[in-house]
Amino acid sequence: MTSFVIPMWLDLLAVGIGAVQGAMFAGRLVERGLDLLGIVIIGIAVGLGGGFARDILIGVPPATMQDNGYILVAAGSALLGMLLLRVFSRVEWLIIGLDALAMGLFCAIGASKAIAAGLPEAPAVFIGIVAAAGGGAIRDVMLDLPVAIMHVGSLVGVSSGVGALVLVGLNAVGADIAVAGLACVVLVALTRLLSVRYGWSLPRQR
Amino acid sequence: MTSFVIPMWLDLLAVGIGAVQGAMFAGRLVERGLDLLGIVIIGIAVGLGGGFARDILIGVPPATMQDNGYILVAAGSALLGMLLLRVFSRVEWLIIGLDALAMGLFCAIGASKAIAAGLPEAPAVFIGIVAAAGGGAIRDVMLDLPVAIMHVGSLVGVSSGVGALVLVGLNAVGADIAVAGLACVVLVALTRLLSVRYGWSLPRQR
Amino acid sequence: MTSFVIPMWLDLLAVGIGAVQGAMFAGRLVERGLDLLGIVIIGIAVGLGGGFARDILIGVPPATMQDNGYILVAAGSALLGMLLLRVFSRVEWLIIGLDALAMGLFCAIGASKAIAAGLPEAPAVFIGIVAAAGGGAIRDVMLDLPVAIMHVGSLVGVSSGVGALVLVGLNAVGADIAVAGLACVVLVALTRLLSVRYGWSLPRQR
Repeated sequence: MTSFVIPMWLDLLAVGIGAVQGAMFAGRLVERGLDLLGIVIIGIAVGLGGGFARDILIGVPPATMQDNGYILVAAGSALLGMLLLRVFSRVEWLIIGLDALAMGLFCAIGASKAIAAGLPEAPAVFIGIVAAAGGGAIRDVMLDLPVAIMHVGSLVGVSSGVGALVLVGLNAVGADIAVAGLACVVLVALTRLLSVRYGWSLPRQR
Repeated sequence: MTSFVIPMWLDLLAVGIGAVQGAMFAGRLVERGLDLLGIVIIGIAVGLGGGFARDILIGVPPATMQDNGYILVAAGSALLGMLLLRVFSRVEWLIIGLDALAMGLFCAIGASKAIAAGLPEAPAVFIGIVAAAGGGAIRDVMLDLPVAIMHVGSLVGVSSGVGALVLVGLNAVGADIAVAGLACVVLVALTRLLSVRYGWSLPRQR
Repeated sequence: MTSFVIPMWLDLLAVGIGAVQGAMFAGRLVERGLDLLGIVIIGIAVGLGGGFARDILIGVPPATMQDNGYILVAAGSALLGMLLLRVFSRVEWLIIGLDALAMGLFCAIGASKAIAAGLPEAPAVFIGIVAAAGGGAIRDVMLDLPVAIMHVGSLVGVSSGVGALVLVGLNAVGADIAVAGLACVVLVALTRLLSVRYGWSLPRQR
């Protein structure tokens, strides 16, 4: 296992995509009575939430608080998301696509940062899942929606779990972390997209 | 005050009992539309949630992320909980009993770990209560249920508060931490069980 | 930028005011079926919540756990809040006033503690906002209410954002931190009060 650090531009990219997606998601819930700031707050929470959860689980100070870039990117991206919502009339699939990509990036960054911090395999997989699903879960709790990851048809947990397992597995057999990370991103985003497109779901209880 | 460490098997036992209970609790809410993963997630959250809250309040990296054992025990116990739900038809009292035992264990581990970390008395009691009630509160928020600890008839806070006070008090007068911890576990579990059995409750406001 | 520490009496004052306000707020929701402990818990959560969030974001152990004072003040203030609710029949404006003052204090303490910890400007503003709004958000989630900061007419986020920006800006141009902090408290409390009094709000989406 070689030592490595997550490049900051990659972390910022995930934050930005998450924040665009979060703002667009919140902006479409017109009946919720959110004001403009509320939409931006959801965007920032989705953009920064997964990374917070990741760093707290790893036990390090939140990276997003160590540099001006993260908050500015998250806030700017949330505003961009609100703008996109006004420009495009059909945004359903754009939101789903951005969500899938953000999940993949957060999963890969989370699991590999846990490995880099010296944590064992199971926590690394767990942190990848939490980082991937965390932003959406925070969004759902703040908007008082059912938390998507726990309900039929979401497959959020399965997608990110498979992705994180593959990343940790590839790393364990000596693969380059960039390759393992890329495999994780593609796998998470793809299974997420396909599960929404084809309505895959886990069996409902009973 | 002598120095001591919480034995890992005890922490794992609390995690396992919490996860069995969480999965059984969630599995009975058929009308919620949880998928199988959702039930396992609730189990893991109840098993690991109290310990997370404890370690974050104490200000140390979460113990549950430092070893593969915690997550594997929590996930395995959640699956076991789902299985038990299919095997037994009357599980009401099994769930309540496991809940009471997990609360006692988390309370004792939380308060004594806080003392071992050098924290003063009031925070140690507070951390014992949060560790005892935390898993259930996380469960209730995730399932969008009223948070049990704050409502008439639960006595969750009183049970764990009394237990944590006794542990901190016994420790202050020089009792062995194992004795103080055992007293705490028995007291919390017993008052919790009796309060459910006999419908004890605090006065409702007004 | 000179080094400084937040005086403990100031932090305790904010905790106390927050806890009084939280208990009074919760105590008025008679239809919620809270028991007396539930009201005290909400008071403690509002009193300690903003400071927890602040310290976790900064990446330091929660200050409120390092000393007996915080929890005792929060619990005592929550009881005081319940008492006040019985003594006075018209408490609407008392609650709003205490809320505005607590928000201002938490905002100033949060932003200046972040600066003292060496964090950059944007995170310092962010932490000020989270510290100011955190207690109320925790209260709303625990009581299963819509989170106030995200809805039309609240202006919670704007008030604390402006206050934190002014504090960080004054500090950047070399002002004394006590002056910057006082300006922040006054600004946050005043805009909050005026926004409630005159019904100021941000444009609702669309």
